[in-house]
Order: sequence, then C-alpha cells, then structure tokens
Amino acid sequence: MTSLFERVENNAKMPKAAFNEIASELRLRMVQMQQSLRHADFPVIVVFAGVDGAGKSESVQLLNEWMDPRWIVTRAYGKPSEEEAERPEFWRYWRDLPAKGQFGLYLSAWYSDPLIDKVYKRIGQKKLDARLAHISKFEQTLADDGALILKFWMHLNKKEQRKWLRKLENDPHQHWRITAHDWKNWKRYDRFIETAEHIIEQTDCTGAPWRLVDAADPPFRAYTVLTTIEQAVTERIAADKRKRKPRRIRKRSKPLDSSVLTRLDLSQTVSRADYGPRLKEQRARLHSLYRRAKAQDLSVILAFEGWDAAGKGGAIRRLTAALDARDYQVVPIAAPTDEERAHHYLWRFWRRVSRAGRFTIFDRSWYGRLLVEKVEQLIDAATYERSFDEIVEFEDQISEHGILLLKFWLHIDKDEQAARFEKRKATPYKRWKLTDEDWRNREKWDEYERCVDEMVRRTSTENSPWTLVEANDKRHARLKVIETLCERLEERLK
Amino acid sequence: MTSLFERVENNAKMPKAAFNEIASELRLRMVQMQQSLRHADFPVIVVFAGVDGAGKSESVQLLNEWMDPRWIVTRAYGKPSEEEAERPEFWRYWRDLPAKGQFGLYLSAWYSDPLIDKVYKRIGQKKLDARLAHISKFEQTLADDGALILKFWMHLNKKEQRKWLRKLENDPHQHWRITAHDWKNWKRYDRFIETAEHIIEQTDCTGAPWRLVDAADPPFRAYTVLTTIEQAVTERIAADKRKRKPRRIRKRSKPLDSSVLTRLDLSQTVSRADYGPRLKEQRARLHSLYRRAKAQDLSVILAFEGWDAAGKGGAIRRLTAALDARDYQVVPIAAPTDEERAHHYLWRFWRRVSRAGRFTIFDRSWYGRLLVEKVEQLIDAATYERSFDEIVEFEDQISEHGILLLKFWLHIDKDEQAARFEKRKATPYKRWKLTDEDWRNREKWDEYERCVDEMVRRTSTENSPWTLVEANDKRHARLKVIETLCERLEERLK
Repeated sequence: MTSLFERVENNAKMPKAAFNEIASELRLRMVQMQQSLRHADFPVIVVFAGVDGAGKSESVQLLNEWMDPRWIVTRAYGKPSEEEAERPEFWRYWRDLPAKGQFGLYLSAWYSDPLIDKVYKRIGQKKLDARLAHISKFEQTLADDGALILKFWMHLNKKEQRKWLRKLENDPHQHWRITAHDWKNWKRYDRFIETAEHIIEQTDCTGAPWRLVDAADPPFRAYTVLTTIEQAVTERIAADKRKRKPRRIRKRSKPLDSSVLTRLDLSQTVSRADYGPRLKEQRARLHSLYRRAKAQDLSVILAFEGWDAAGKGGAIRRLTAALDARDYQVVPIAAPTDEERAHHYLWRFWRRVSRAGRFTIFDRSWYGRLLVEKVEQLIDAATYERSFDEIVEFEDQISEHGILLLKFWLHIDKDEQAARFEKRKATPYKRWKLTDEDWRNREKWDEYERCVDEMVRRTSTENSPWTLVEANDKRHARLKVIETLCERLEERLK
Repeated sequence: MTSLFERVENNAKMPKAAFNEIASELRLRMVQMQQSLRHADFPVIVVFAGVDGAGKSESVQLLNEWMDPRWIVTRAYGKPSEEEAERPEFWRYWRDLPAKGQFGLYLSAWYSDPLIDKVYKRIGQKKLDARLAHISKFEQTLADDGALILKFWMHLNKKEQRKWLRKLENDPHQHWRITAHDWKNWKRYDRFIETAEHIIEQTDCTGAPWRLVDAADPPFRAYTVLTTIEQAVTERIAADKRKRKPRRIRKRSKPLDSSVLTRLDLSQTVSRADYGPRLKEQRARLHSLYRRAKAQDLSVILAFEGWDAAGKGGAIRRLTAALDARDYQVVPIAAPTDEERAHHYLWRFWRRVSRAGRFTIFDRSWYGRLLVEKVEQLIDAATYERSFDEIVEFEDQISEHGILLLKFWLHIDKDEQAARFEKRKATPYKRWKLTDEDWRNREKWDEYERCVDEMVRRTSTENSPWTLVEANDKRHARLKVIETLCERLEERLK
C-alpha cells in the first residue's frame, strides 16, 4: 500500500438516509448545471478509472439517470476493431469526443491498456512512460481548447476489493459478474496499485487533474463524484462569463528576412516535350510502388498547401491517376461543418484518417491553423504558439503508427500568381475559382510568407519534413511531387 | 451480343478538335450548374457501371477536374472491411451518401458485387434478383426523398475491349494497368453482357433510370456523360423552382375505432415485493444470454417508442444494467443535427447501427417519421405513405443481415400520463423533463393514437413484430421489456 492511496482512505461514510435526504436537491443542481452547460462553449470530459468494484459503471449509470442522456456520450472500449487497429491508437478516442455543451463519460478508456499491459508485464517502464506522454499531450490539447477534464481514480483497498468480489460471488443473481479473471486481477492488486500511482503522477496536470475517490462507501462515493462534477462545471461556466475576450494585439509587421521560400529557384522548368514521357514513367513507377505499399498495408497521408492558384488540385490529379479509386480519398478542406466547429480543430482531420493500405490526400490541411487562422486573427497568440506542438504531436502519432506522411508546399511568386489570376478571370469556366478572398489574401502576401516560413521551420520533423515545390512551372511541380512521393515510398519499402 | 446493347453501338464519333472547341463553353455550363446545385434541396448521385476500359474512372476524373471537388464525394468500393461486413450490406453506401447540394460519384458501387458474383457463378438467378430488389428499393428510397440519380452503363463491344486491353498492354508505361484478371474477365464477356442486360432491366425505374453510353469513342463518351449530367441537374433545379409546395390538407379527424392499444390490459401490476427478486433474476438471465449472443457475434437493435412519460428511459436503464458498457450504446433521438438534416431521414439511423455482437438501443427511433412528423404535418400524405415501405425495407435489411431487432411501444393511458406530468412538475429535479411540447402533444392524444395504431399494424413484420408494453405500472413494464428480450434471444440462440 503506497502513500498516495493511503491518504485517500479516510473511512468517510455517509448513511444512505443522509444521501437520500440531499439527493433531490443535488439532482436539481445537476440538472440545472447540465442545462447551462448546453449553451456553454466547452465540452466536459469525465474519466472514471480505478479498481474493479469501485463503482465506475455505477457512477456512469447514475449520471445518465440524473441528467438528460441526450447530451451525454458514454463510452467504454474493448479490444480495437480491425478498423481501429489500422489507425493510430487515439483515433477512436478522437472520433468519440463530445461536442461543446455536452458530457463525455469514459470508462477507463485510454488509461485501461497501459495499466493492464504494465501489470501483466507486457510492457516495461519505458514503453509505459511513452504511452503516458501521449495521454498527457492528448488531454492537454483538449484542455487548451477549452475542454473541462475531470478524472476520477476510484479506490478500494485490497481487503475491500476481496469483500466486494466475495459478496457478488455469493449472490445467485450476480455471481455472473465475477470471473476467474477478476480474481487473477485481485492477486496482482499490489502491482496494480503501484502502477496506478505512477500513472496518476505522470498524467496529473493543471488542465486534467486527477481526483482520488475513496469508494469503500457507495453513498459517499456517489456524493463525492456528483458534487465534484457539479461544482467544477458550474464554476467553469461562471468563470467563462466573467472572462472577457482576450484583446487581440495586432503585431507590427517585421521586415521579411530571407525566408526558406526566398531560397527556392523558381526558374526551374520542364519542357512540354519532356513532360509527357516523364509523367508516364513516374506514374508507372508510382503505381508499382503503391501496389507494394498496399500489399504491406502501408498507409500514406499527403498534405498539400500552397498559394492560391499554385496548382494543388492539378498536382493531386496527376498523382491519383496512378492509384485505384478504391484506395485513395481526396479530402478538400474548406470551412468546417457545424459538427466540426463544435469540436477541437484537429477532430476533423482525425476523423478522415483512412484505413491501412490507403492514401488520404488533403487538399489544404490542418496547417490552415498556422496560416489563414493566424493571418486573419481567428486565433490569439497563445493558441497559435500551442498549435505548433499540437500539430507535431498529431503527426508524431501518425508516423509512430507506421503511416507515411508527406507535406508539400507549392510555391509560386507574386507575379506568377497575378498572371494565373488574370488567366482565370479571362477563362469563363475558371472564373468561379477566383473569389474576392483570393484578392484579399494576395494583399497579405508578406504576412502569409512569414507564417509559411515559421510553419516550415517549426514543423519539419525527422519523420515528416516539408517538401517545398517550385511551382511557377506546373510541369516541374507535378513531376517533383510524384517523384518525391516515389522516393519516400522506396525508402520505406526497401 | 444482345439487342439492348446493340442499339447503343451507333458508331457515333466526335473528332477531338470538335470536342475541344465546345469544351470551354460546356465546362462553364457545368460550373454554373454546380453552383446552382449548391443551393438546391437535393443531392445528385451519379453511378458509373459497365465494362473495364469504357472510361468509368476517366469520367469521374473529368468531373472532378471540371467542377469544384469540395462539393463532390467520389467513392469506389473494394472488399468490405471487417467493420463493414459486420453491418448490413448497404450500411457503407448509406454512410457515404452526399448531402443536399452535393454530387456523389460512384464507381460501380452497389452494382459491382451482384454482377461479378453472377458472372463467376458464385450466385444463381434467384439470389441475384433478391439483391437487385434491394438495390431498386435503395435507389427508390433516395429518389423519393428528392435525390437526382443518374446511372450510366458504359459500353464497349468485345472487340473494342480487346483492342483497349492490347493497347495498354503494349504501352511500357501503362501495361501495369492490365493483369491476368482483366483477360479472365474478357473471356467471360458474353456472360458479362447477358448479366448486365438483366441487371439493367431489373433496376431501371423512373426515379433512377439507366443511360447506356457507347464508350468506343472517348470524346463522344465524355460529351454524352457531361451534357447528360448538366442537363438533368439544370432541368431538375428549374423544375423545383416552378413547383409550388404541395398544399397540406388537414384531414378531418375520424372517430377512433378500437385500436390495438385499446385492447391492452393496463391494470397489470407487479408488487414491490415481487419486483426486486424478479428483476435480479431476469437480469442474470439476460446477462448470460447476452454473453452467448456476444460469443456468436449476434447484434441486437432495440427501438423504444411510447407516450411521453411512459418510462422509456427507466426501462432502458434496467436493461443495460445487465450489459457491459463496452457492448452497448444508447442512442437518444432528438432533433437532427445539420449534417443529418442534409440527408435522407434514415441516414442518421443507418450511421448508428453498431458492430457485430453489440446492442444498439434507440430511445425513440425512425418511427418518429410515422408519429410526430405525421401529427405535426412535417411531411405530406404521400411521404407518409411511402415511409411505411422504407421503414420495412430498412428493418428487413437489418434482419436479413442476422441482427435481432425488437420494437417496444410503452403504453400508458391519458390519466396516468397526467398524473406523471403533475408529479414531474412537483419534483424540482424532474421538472426539466416536462416541456410545453409535452402538454401540446397531450392535446393531440387521439391523433397520435391513430398513428400508433396504423404504425403497429403496418410495420409488424414476421422478423420484427411490435411488442406492446402495458406501462401504467412501471415495474410490470420494466420486467416485460427484459423478459421479452430474453425470450427473443433464447429463440435465436437455441
């Protein structure tokens, strides 16, 4: 028995009658809290972890009974399905996140596997810590976005757990709840607690603190959980109301030093005569690589960014011509839908990550966060700063899962863009592509360029460096994109 | 060679220069059409089927190039994934349907398997026809909801297909596109055409007619496809504008004959003393059945309907207490989200069908269509009529896939409802459950009762009959729900 949990065992008891007496008033407060939450700008994520018999499910049932289940998402997770296993570990958790104004109740969830795997010695300390680091980042990302995260560790000591196991076993109608596996877990109680303590220490942070609950006395346990949730949500709603919107400070434009973009040689061209044969050749090369990738269940994610009219769509179409339509999806990123807006900005990219052996091609991507959202001042400076880490973590999880991630910036200069805009204007069927926004964006060229420079420098990681593509000549750009993809595939498949 | 396709082979040719000449004007029309579509109240579903080499992918690529891919969903399907195979066959097609104002482009899609399976003699005529019947109903359902469905059968004769195969094979950069499998298909050309003709005949209907395209000449083929789509969409938008909203006719209330509901004996009760032990016993019974169901990958879908305050939530909670939280989800049905509203009304139920071995519990369901939507006159009489068939087809697909479907109507009388409303009003923490709408609904009791009666009579099928639950006594109701579920599970698992 370690000190962390000893401190929790305070033998607090609440007679059932006392609980019943305050129940109706507490229940009313819960209901009112939920109603206010519906109009609030954040989701509430509640995680119940801890030992079996400590009332995790009972707490979830109670919350569903006392509040309106229409605005509650309840989730427990078993072994990943085939589709889940084909994506990074956190894909299914991202998919199930509650929208703003709603509750998400989670039974063990992302804490379950690390704990069990460590207790049963399937992983060592180092692997455990690596997984806990992902958990911390995941929770921090959500908390930074405004999510209120409440984590309850439900505690019973070894004797109490045995008492609970025996009681159920002796009940003719409940003994089905106890299996040999439960006793197997119980025998590892000490190791369980030791690991739990480590997990709690490693994942306890301001944005997502742990609350240890002494679960020996069910009424007291229920009271603790309910009042903690009620208070935390109510306080947060009140705090949000008090808080004024952060003042946006318009930064003075700094002179543009030599950015990574200025170093690109935009004069590179490919002649029309060379282009046809080379494209065909590269396409055949890509096709055979893609078949090998598919056979090995290698997934590929491509993110395309670039100036308006830089030729992203054209480059993507030249590339997909080598792929079977069943094996790729192009995801054009425009304004988010209502459902997407009600979640963390990365949610809509997570939900698009495709299955093993497929290509997911983003025509614009999560980098909008560091480009348009920054330039248009849709986010404040702190959010902008934080987004670098969030994106790198997102991409790390993708890479660690074995997915090949490529990022392309298609670069043209300002004159070339002007020429293309004029051409679009003059071509009736292309005019729709040109919007007032394109002209407005053009006026902010220097600002964008600074952002691109920062983006490329701070998000080029070993696993997923940026590829800068000189795109003044479309033929050169298209070939470079396919060739780069082929090279990266060859590296991975050898 | 059969007559149907012979009629198509008209040797029409379009010189490439002629196509290029009209291309820019046609492209402009396509773009304008797509822009108008965005504000229209229907989706466009385009299916390309036919022989290999007839330009199915090329057509899809061209449409994606000429129009804005942000409002186009393109889908091709391979072998079902594990998650897809665990749901009824059409689950994945429902999931991918385009929203209103958007294009969905499908490569073979639901036509692929029936055709191939028949050609390779994996299924006989009878199975083929059963699958075609599902396809027809699927398309009819979408068409009735307003979807514009265009189906192109791309045709090449045997000689032309061989020519195409050889040409690609001899091209050093393209020979990867041709495999032994393609030649295997070609050898079965006649059987292929024969089956195709049958499929076309069986699935050709007003709402989703086939258009046969002679694909021998690529420019002519492209021209045919593009102009057909452009015209059909433009005409449809114009027709919608002309069409006035159908006048809603308020039906006179007919006197209520003895409905199925009046025959229920609402005086049945279970004493408090009996209830506890019986509930425990039934819960243990359900638990052991659920474990067996899970082991056999049997999925269960439960739909709960009933009067306001009839006790649906309570009955559901008593039942889920016997299940592991990982294995069930409760889906409370309230107003649809924006994304849901932009699809067919069944879409949001399709997307919730859960994996093999799980329970999906709908707290209110697709029957809202025949109840609140009818009473509140949100749908017209024709839509109401049609919805019976759509729902029965939906449930048939669920049952045919082997999922156990149960439907409960929780029935209380008007006095009992009044008493419960008053009690809710008097209990602070329950007051939120009671809305003005509940009182308004109550005024329409007779109208609702007529709808319930019709619903129960017309949607009680052999596979999924309604279970009417006398719910004036909550204890009786809860037990009957669990007992019914246990009986149905025992039937299935024996």
